[in-house]
Amino acid sequence: MDEKTGRYEFANLDFRREQRTGMGETVYCPGKTCAQLADIIRAFQDVGKSVLCTKATAEQMTYVGDRIQCLECDPVSGVIRYSAGARSRLPGRVAVCTGGTADIPVAEEAALTVDFFGAAADRYYDIGVAGIHRLFSKLESIRSADVVIAVAGMEGALGSVISGLVSVPVVAVPTSVGYGASFSGLAPLLSMLNSCAEGMAVVNIDNGFGAAVMACRIIRSAKRIGEV
Amino acid sequence: MDEKTGRYEFANLDFRREQRTGMGETVYCPGKTCAQLADIIRAFQDVGKSVLCTKATAEQMTYVGDRIQCLECDPVSGVIRYSAGARSRLPGRVAVCTGGTADIPVAEEAALTVDFFGAAADRYYDIGVAGIHRLFSKLESIRSADVVIAVAGMEGALGSVISGLVSVPVVAVPTSVGYGASFSGLAPLLSMLNSCAEGMAVVNIDNGFGAAVMACRIIRSAKRIGEV
Amino acid sequence: MDEKTGRYEFANLDFRREQRTGMGETVYCPGKTCAQLADIIRAFQDVGKSVLCTKATAEQMTYVGDRIQCLECDPVSGVIRYSAGARSRLPGRVAVCTGGTADIPVAEEAALTVDFFGAAADRYYDIGVAGIHRLFSKLESIRSADVVIAVAGMEGALGSVISGLVSVPVVAVPTSVGYGASFSGLAPLLSMLNSCAEGMAVVNIDNGFGAAVMACRIIRSAKRIGEV
Amino acid sequence: MDEKTGRYEFANLDFRREQRTGMGETVYCPGKTCAQLADIIRAFQDVGKSVLCTKATAEQMTYVGDRIQCLECDPVSGVIRYSAGARSRLPGRVAVCTGGTADIPVAEEAALTVDFFGAAADRYYDIGVAGIHRLFSKLESIRSADVVIAVAGMEGALGSVISGLVSVPVVAVPTSVGYGASFSGLAPLLSMLNSCAEGMAVVNIDNGFGAAVMACRIIRSAKRIGEV
Amino acid sequence: MDEKTGRYEFANLDFRREQRTGMGETVYCPGKTCAQLADIIRAFQDVGKSVLCTKATAEQMTYVGDRIQCLECDPVSGVIRYSAGARSRLPGRVAVCTGGTADIPVAEEAALTVDFFGAAADRYYDIGVAGIHRLFSKLESIRSADVVIAVAGMEGALGSVISGLVSVPVVAVPTSVGYGASFSGLAPLLSMLNSCAEGMAVVNIDNGFGAAVMACRIIRSAKRIGEV
Amino acid sequence: MDEKTGRYEFANLDFRREQRTGMGETVYCPGKTCAQLADIIRAFQDVGKSVLCTKATAEQMTYVGDRIQCLECDPVSGVIRYSAGARSRLPGRVAVCTGGTADIPVAEEAALTVDFFGAAADRYYDIGVAGIHRLFSKLESIRSADVVIAVAGMEGALGSVISGLVSVPVVAVPTSVGYGASFSGLAPLLSMLNSCAEGMAVVNIDNGFGAAVMACRIIRSAKRIGEV
Amino acid sequence: MDEKTGRYEFANLDFRREQRTGMGETVYCPGKTCAQLADIIRAFQDVGKSVLCTKATAEQMTYVGDRIQCLECDPVSGVIRYSAGARSRLPGRVAVCTGGTADIPVAEEAALTVDFFGAAADRYYDIGVAGIHRLFSKLESIRSADVVIAVAGMEGALGSVISGLVSVPVVAVPTSVGYGASFSGLAPLLSMLNSCAEGMAVVNIDNGFGAAVMACRIIRSAKRIGEV
Amino acid sequence: MDEKTGRYEFANLDFRREQRTGMGETVYCPGKTCAQLADIIRAFQDVGKSVLCTKATAEQMTYVGDRIQCLECDPVSGVIRYSAGARSRLPGRVAVCTGGTADIPVAEEAALTVDFFGAAADRYYDIGVAGIHRLFSKLESIRSADVVIAVAGMEGALGSVISGLVSVPVVAVPTSVGYGASFSGLAPLLSMLNSCAEGMAVVNIDNGFGAAVMACRIIRSAKRIGEV
Repeated sequence: MDEKTGRYEFANLDFRREQRTGMGETVYCPGKTCAQLADIIRAFQDVGKSVLCTKATAEQMTYVGDRIQCLECDPVSGVIRYSAGARSRLPGRVAVCTGGTADIPVAEEAALTVDFFGAAADRYYDIGVAGIHRLFSKLESIRSADVVIAVAGMEGALGSVISGLVSVPVVAVPTSVGYGASFSGLAPLLSMLNSCAEGMAVVNIDNGFGAAVMACRIIRSAKRIGEV
Repeated sequence: MDEKTGRYEFANLDFRREQRTGMGETVYCPGKTCAQLADIIRAFQDVGKSVLCTKATAEQMTYVGDRIQCLECDPVSGVIRYSAGARSRLPGRVAVCTGGTADIPVAEEAALTVDFFGAAADRYYDIGVAGIHRLFSKLESIRSADVVIAVAGMEGALGSVISGLVSVPVVAVPTSVGYGASFSGLAPLLSMLNSCAEGMAVVNIDNGFGAAVMACRIIRSAKRIGEV
Repeated sequence: MDEKTGRYEFANLDFRREQRTGMGETVYCPGKTCAQLADIIRAFQDVGKSVLCTKATAEQMTYVGDRIQCLECDPVSGVIRYSAGARSRLPGRVAVCTGGTADIPVAEEAALTVDFFGAAADRYYDIGVAGIHRLFSKLESIRSADVVIAVAGMEGALGSVISGLVSVPVVAVPTSVGYGASFSGLAPLLSMLNSCAEGMAVVNIDNGFGAAVMACRIIRSAKRIGEV
Repeated sequence: MDEKTGRYEFANLDFRREQRTGMGETVYCPGKTCAQLADIIRAFQDVGKSVLCTKATAEQMTYVGDRIQCLECDPVSGVIRYSAGARSRLPGRVAVCTGGTADIPVAEEAALTVDFFGAAADRYYDIGVAGIHRLFSKLESIRSADVVIAVAGMEGALGSVISGLVSVPVVAVPTSVGYGASFSGLAPLLSMLNSCAEGMAVVNIDNGFGAAVMACRIIRSAKRIGEV
Repeated sequence: MDEKTGRYEFANLDFRREQRTGMGETVYCPGKTCAQLADIIRAFQDVGKSVLCTKATAEQMTYVGDRIQCLECDPVSGVIRYSAGARSRLPGRVAVCTGGTADIPVAEEAALTVDFFGAAADRYYDIGVAGIHRLFSKLESIRSADVVIAVAGMEGALGSVISGLVSVPVVAVPTSVGYGASFSGLAPLLSMLNSCAEGMAVVNIDNGFGAAVMACRIIRSAKRIGEV
Repeated sequence: MDEKTGRYEFANLDFRREQRTGMGETVYCPGKTCAQLADIIRAFQDVGKSVLCTKATAEQMTYVGDRIQCLECDPVSGVIRYSAGARSRLPGRVAVCTGGTADIPVAEEAALTVDFFGAAADRYYDIGVAGIHRLFSKLESIRSADVVIAVAGMEGALGSVISGLVSVPVVAVPTSVGYGASFSGLAPLLSMLNSCAEGMAVVNIDNGFGAAVMACRIIRSAKRIGEV
Repeated sequence: MDEKTGRYEFANLDFRREQRTGMGETVYCPGKTCAQLADIIRAFQDVGKSVLCTKATAEQMTYVGDRIQCLECDPVSGVIRYSAGARSRLPGRVAVCTGGTADIPVAEEAALTVDFFGAAADRYYDIGVAGIHRLFSKLESIRSADVVIAVAGMEGALGSVISGLVSVPVVAVPTSVGYGASFSGLAPLLSMLNSCAEGMAVVNIDNGFGAAVMACRIIRSAKRIGEV
Repeated sequence: MDEKTGRYEFANLDFRREQRTGMGETVYCPGKTCAQLADIIRAFQDVGKSVLCTKATAEQMTYVGDRIQCLECDPVSGVIRYSAGARSRLPGRVAVCTGGTADIPVAEEAALTVDFFGAAADRYYDIGVAGIHRLFSKLESIRSADVVIAVAGMEGALGSVISGLVSVPVVAVPTSVGYGASFSGLAPLLSMLNSCAEGMAVVNIDNGFGAAVMACRIIRSAKRIGEV
């Protein structure tokens, strides 16, 4: 590997992404062999940079966890994190909410990513609209966040309901939880895109990572505005 | 027309449907000429039977309204009703709810049908989840109904939210209200089918009539159980 | 676990759902580990409440069946039931019908749920329209039910045919039985939503449980009307 | 136009199709100007050949009807026929059935095409499964046909039900009649393709013409077998 | 099992289907346990009737083949046949054609079914339009058949091309052969439904059995016409 | 109309939404009659509140423009604005970008909404990836914004490209501009949801308004963080 | 307008595209007002450059044709061409083929574009697979082209058949010609993408223009290779 | 096997395809048994012809690699090549580009096919639009190719961006890389078909082979033009 360019045998590692977009490179694990994944993580360690890996399989996680030190591996979400040093902290809080317990893997991907990039993630799980009192009991707390990430499968109504109740931006993540006419997440995706409540935008099905990056960009943008 | 068989030049009128399914014949207006529609309505009048016509166009409504007496024509919903005599009343109440004002035509189709078949329809319009306080302010009243019809377009979350808050059966009607990724009502349809709240079943997009017949069958069934 | 709130490590158990919606909490098994499922069932046993679990895998069923006493496990439907005491009975009967033999797992999910919530379930299996004499030979009996649940895959015509022949509400369940242009149940789903026969509403593909809860709500609503 | 090749300014007329496939050329009207349509019909008249035109608009029908003699124009189906001489008759009968009255235009396209190619078309309209007694009252008569064409929109169950009751081949035509989740005929199309009753094959949505050609090929094939 | 009614523990066997539709009962294997399948086949043997089973898995085939005598098991197509006696022969020939070699399993399902019901099946495999000379070299022979079954995946053009070249009815079977934008057979299904060549009708994706029954009904119908 | 509750004959106006979500009520014009729209706008004027109306037709715009004073009507976007007083200003800037000129109506809906809620909107139109030098020539300027709204139809690549080049949050708006396999905006919608560049979230097709509200919530959230 | 940058009030005209991609700017007419279109065309005339406009409506064509001299307007295809001088010629020939007469507008868009960019376009119309002898009678001639453009709606088989018969690259254009399960061109689009014949690539539905640009790039690339 | 006709037990090998279309026969491996595949490859060796096999599984590759000499087996792409002699070279270069590393298997299928048919393949991998500087750093080199193959999953923007920057034909290959709303490659497929940049045509999802054949036909066509 050429350290300057990040040019690797099978990948163009983008060590300078942080300069350009404000956030470091991350690794999407599916389709990579265990050995490739280990090589990539070591490449980051070699240049003294942190790296976040998402959607790792159990096999990938075991392989790299056994061979590389100082990794945080989360089996629920498939997130692997390596932190090169103390993370710089962002000033905001992100409320990560789920409709049901089955949405938690995606929510944890979001929460761990938020934390990796330096913001605080507060978890509010299993507060979906089938028992809406569960949401209301947490509402004051959720309202105090700077960004809300709403993770929900099935009918995906959580985002709409929250979005009508808070004044901060809501990033909605449809999940593939469900069966039949969920069509692998199409139902909550369309539901969230058509929300009658405004102030919400949507990322890909099961893309907790993407929601977290959006949330962190929001907080970073906020920080900049505040500094002006 | 042969009065005994209901056999008409262009249609097999089913005068005995009431005996078989407990509810009289109804007429779906699209695709019929104004003259055909008028002939059909007159055929029912001739045999002394009530008839309900749905989804009439403005042109159809004007045509038959000008030529036939004693019709109730509702331009909002496209419902035309002819009542041959005093309607027998069913013992239950149906709460007809909508998410937004644009869902009202479909909801009125439901409410007028419920009324036609003898049950009471209470209207709760524009109480969608974008401002969920509007729903809560009506909740006690809605809970006192025997069946709820939830009419909503866009993300269609109204049904799920209500279904988690009441103990009576909920009939959900997705509407084609919305644009873009609503895909003409596909979004609320899928959303309602995937509801995380149980106790709800769904009819076709914009099918207020079908929801009302389902609701009336529920009440009729209830009446029978009560009589046993 | 906090017994009062039902707040568990990984789930918000809703012990008070019965008060709110009239029916107890149920558990959707997919995505839960065997150990989580066992913990949840024990939590209900600990507070002396019944619980119904749906769509359990063979592995889940074996695991909890080996470790927890007094469970009824049905391998055909994937339903696990724990009854804390004698069930209060509802006054109505539900006719559970299927088009073919391959629809039976979904139908059994419906029938066992109906039974769990206290109503009587009568089974009429393999009476689909390919040999419609099989339906007619059972028709009188089906007509005597208070609600019909029609479970069918492939073209899903069973619901329409029954709905035109009975006067009680019909809850239709499309199944993913079939192949090719069934598109995992889309064909019977669309077919049932577009039924030319009224008095029917539809639940999600393979959702026998949802149909049963709808049926029981109908009977409960009926009971209330009868009592007034 | 070059009469030998049928080569026209804007079309390759296929005067010899009859020799090749046993049936004469037909004209699909949409997208053609009134003048082009008239020219094409005249070209057939000039060479003394019959021609069948389908899906003509009211405007096309008036234009050519006013200018060309001896045309049979049917406004219900949009079929225009010119018969150069006495049609040779095929030995079979085709039962053309519809679920509702709104399916009649497509059914008439089929029936007029069957007649044009020399077979007998018997019409059984408005006998759909919402009132299945209507079908049974005609069943003996339908069973005596050599081919059945089943035309139905909405849930399209007619084909399945008939196919399970007769022993002759059934050609099913889904129609775009309906709204909402019919998705312009997708619902009955999928329903018919997934029929649990065998002995049925399907043509394009609203393609009464195609069903009729299939039916006539069946009868012609039959005739040939009989002659052997 | 009750031999008169065919009522079995888990299925309503329809021993009298032959009387009604002219063809005996058949068994769709997916979703049945090996033991259930064996019981069903034995039930037919016990009453001295032939039976055809389709889409059997390798496991099902081995299980019943090991336990029941006189079965013909075809591993390519998944067809199992039991013939109770000499089959009555139908007077026609069916040309079974495929576009590629990967379509052969579906074609064999069709050919073996045609043979089971008494007609002759001629096979023309791997003659798709990528090398259309292969089709032309067989054309005279194909033209001599009474019905053509065209089996093709990918773009499914085989049916259209044949249909424009022969005068007999063509039954088209789209297959799930292909990848990507084939969408599991949607591409050839739509292609065949939209064929510019008339005289063709379509059955479900991979439904060789259904095409064969349609073909046999055509020949039976032909026989009847010929006998009149 | 009841001024306190905002309860109107045909709508529940939500005068207190501003308190709850930080932004005032807005009106979605489609489906409302001209008279209804005028009444709603006057209701806001009567209580001294600003109001924003979106997707007004030319007819609606002319009607209310002729009858109500002090309205800003923009025919390009269909936006009608009434400002009750000087708008409070938000501290951020929003860069509104389009791929082509045909996307401008949606972009103007976004820009006028951003302005209505108090932030500054900078327009960068017709800078799509077909000629990517146009984007690069504006890049420095776009990078200085606090939020980017990327509006694009056809393949919708603009969002991905910008998102990889800036560090602020990007709100992507797919448009229905295009034809054929655009499927009314499905193509850019899916493209934007699957972006390989992170830091972007998506709103409904043609929903410039929703993107603007999201952008303003981001800035408001930023302001709050800055104030802490 | 700023002539150097091509920056216009409502559009960034790209006068230098020719340098970059070898072909001049073109204008997509839908969504532009008549006046805007006229202004754009005049802008090109003012700087002495040729311009091609596609998919103009009849109204746009009349408007600009009446006001601007030296335009070639083709009402069949909606193409408007202005040639600033003698076109430089490319050395190749493009065979533009259609399946039916209804595909001609799209084919003419292709042929006129090919001609505009300097290559020769030979037309072979109405040679679809329903009568495949029409294709074979032209085959020698088509084989002599350097690129083939195959334009077809309905089942779109033309491309596959040609692609298996020639050795030059084939650019396939699905058209929206057809109805029902054509789903506005989805059927031929999928068909062409899944072609069993290789050496073909596909452009958007109805995109004759895009196919022509692809063809001209092929010829230009060829020219360059030949010159080396 | 009959060597003259290439007629094999289970396949019509097309040894003369090279004469007809200029390129030799190739083998699509899915659905073939290991033994069938080996037989086919040996058949080509026996007649002294080269053969290319695509999408082989690991199992197929091991099987034939162990039994047949002189094969080149590439596990990344699933390509197996047998070269009967020195390949004739084509005069052009093909730039094979990918958006990400996960697209490499499809790109290698393309590159190895290009090489097999005699053209030169230059690889530019992992240069997608998330970090567009990576593309620009290679742009001069890419521009010097005669054809570009752009392989990309997710949003598929790579093709559009390249197409706007080069003057040679671009063949775009969408891949099934991605998840959620990628819908197995539908997202990049639609994106590429709707590209706002012209001069690009698209092949099936994951069809690297098809793109390569298109590219080689382009170069062969070029060679011919150059020779004239």
